Amino acid sequence: MSSQAFELLILGSSSASPTADRNQSAQLLNIAERFFLIDCGEATQIQLRKFKAKFQKVDHVFISHLHGDHFFGLPGYLGSMHLLGRQQELNIYCPKELKSIIDLIHEVSETKLNYPVKWHFTDNSKQNLIFEDDKVEVYSFPLKHRIYCTGFLFKEKPFPRKIDKFLMDKHEVSTADVHLLRAGLDVTNSKGELIKNFEVTLDPPKSRSYAYCSDTKYDETLVQYIKDVYLLYHESTFLDDKIDRAKQTFHSTAKQAASIAKLANVKKLLLGHYSARYGDLSQFVKEASEVFQNCALSVEGETVLVEHSE
Amino acid sequence: MSSQAFELLILGSSSASPTADRNQSAQLLNIAERFFLIDCGEATQIQLRKFKAKFQKVDHVFISHLHGDHFFGLPGYLGSMHLLGRQQELNIYCPKELKSIIDLIHEVSETKLNYPVKWHFTDNSKQNLIFEDDKVEVYSFPLKHRIYCTGFLFKEKPFPRKIDKFLMDKHEVSTADVHLLRAGLDVTNSKGELIKNFEVTLDPPKSRSYAYCSDTKYDETLVQYIKDVYLLYHESTFLDDKIDRAKQTFHSTAKQAASIAKLANVKKLLLGHYSARYGDLSQFVKEASEVFQNCALSVEGETVLVEHSE
Repeated sequence: MSSQAFELLILGSSSASPTADRNQSAQLLNIAERFFLIDCGEATQIQLRKFKAKFQKVDHVFISHLHGDHFFGLPGYLGSMHLLGRQQELNIYCPKELKSIIDLIHEVSETKLNYPVKWHFTDNSKQNLIFEDDKVEVYSFPLKHRIYCTGFLFKEKPFPRKIDKFLMDKHEVSTADVHLLRAGLDVTNSKGELIKNFEVTLDPPKSRSYAYCSDTKYDETLVQYIKDVYLLYHESTFLDDKIDRAKQTFHSTAKQAASIAKLANVKKLLLGHYSARYGDLSQFVKEASEVFQNCALSVEGETVLVEHSE
Repeated sequence: MSSQAFELLILGSSSASPTADRNQSAQLLNIAERFFLIDCGEATQIQLRKFKAKFQKVDHVFISHLHGDHFFGLPGYLGSMHLLGRQQELNIYCPKELKSIIDLIHEVSETKLNYPVKWHFTDNSKQNLIFEDDKVEVYSFPLKHRIYCTGFLFKEKPFPRKIDKFLMDKHEVSTADVHLLRAGLDVTNSKGELIKNFEVTLDPPKSRSYAYCSDTKYDETLVQYIKDVYLLYHESTFLDDKIDRAKQTFHSTAKQAASIAKLANVKKLLLGHYSARYGDLSQFVKEASEVFQNCALSVEGETVLVEHSE
């Protein structure tokens, strides 16, 4: 149970302009074989092919906002899934205007997708639960950017408590009651004695979580939505030398991303959305780690494994 | 004069679906330092950067039709030119519905481009002269595809006649009359004698031309628009084994492209728009050259030089 996948494949790390080797924002998150595509910059479908990722297994696409570098890859991705024979429903979580754009494109190109698209329009006035199944919950939350924008929080649901078989036998608890113990309940044993849950179970692994914050100005009010997450992606478009430019364009610096990571008490910070003006990215880690030690660059094709925290 | 550039850079050679190493339709044509972008599939701007092409020097973009694989790269390309500080007017030649798509995208993303876009809507009822300057003419012409589509023909204007200085001196023609001779006119020499143009001039190099035909079913009526061009790009989505599929989807096979090249008496045929189902492309040349010898594959990053024909 605790060994289920929780991994993030980086498809793009660039901001508004791509470069010859950095694509625009897109990430593929796998939690327990649920595949979530997060933002879909131009050429995302090419990146998915290049990295041999699960192209058709994505059932949920999340678009943070409608600047082109976050969604210009979506029309092509939808079209390719159609051409490759998809029939399964696709869920898209996004600002409502995206539907009009996709509808117009399909009208003009006389395209009728083989598969149904279910639209879920985000609401950036507050945090909202937007997806839930037996293993995962996804929330959207407000981000402060030049235009309407939301972040997304992906959380594993709590794992069942771990049974200690030896202690169960010792206390003469029936195996028929395992499901009650896993759910954290106390049980009565074969002798009619009350056995407290903690006497025969152990704490399960802590649930893992990932928060995606792009694009946003430096904004401490977002800490409430991402408190204690394991992995935080926070945009870092600029280095400290461009802090004024960051403020002006409602973006953040690497150091500001690190401040949010520290305030939110996250385990690990992932930087990204770099301005095309920067060739060498090592300075991003250098500046961020002055404030928050455990940080890394998002790099196209690299997978970040989200491990269980202690 | 005759040594001006006429070269075509291939940015994408794939049809509807890109592959890990083949992008969707886009080509950059340079005639005498006029840069024409022809179609603009997804990730065209990334290809331009990768091949270090003249990103901002393009003043004219030609979109054949509104299937996504021919224009999904345009919104991002327009945005990047804006971000990189373009101020110069950009001309876009396209089906009229493209403007509504771009307008909607800009409205939703609150984007106002720094530079003016001048829209020129194509008319696929007949051949039309759509661009002209002192060196180049561009025509659109009808193609028969599932949706509205046009091809484009790019032609050098006739070069001036070549002066033979030796013969000019021999016939005592004044250098003041050179412009008349270049224009092909007869002149009167210093002794009042009529000197026929052919007595002191030589034929200039023949003008070069390039025709772009994508996407189209096999259609002999298009021969009239591309007769005798030097270089013909004709889509070849399929091999002969899929001739029924070609017919059904209003596309062509490599052999059909070759038949059109032969009927049109072109010098050279360039194949492209390959279905993603084909890995090895050598069979395209093999099948086409059974019908028309001088053919080649379009390959990302390769430049086709259009030489003067004899």
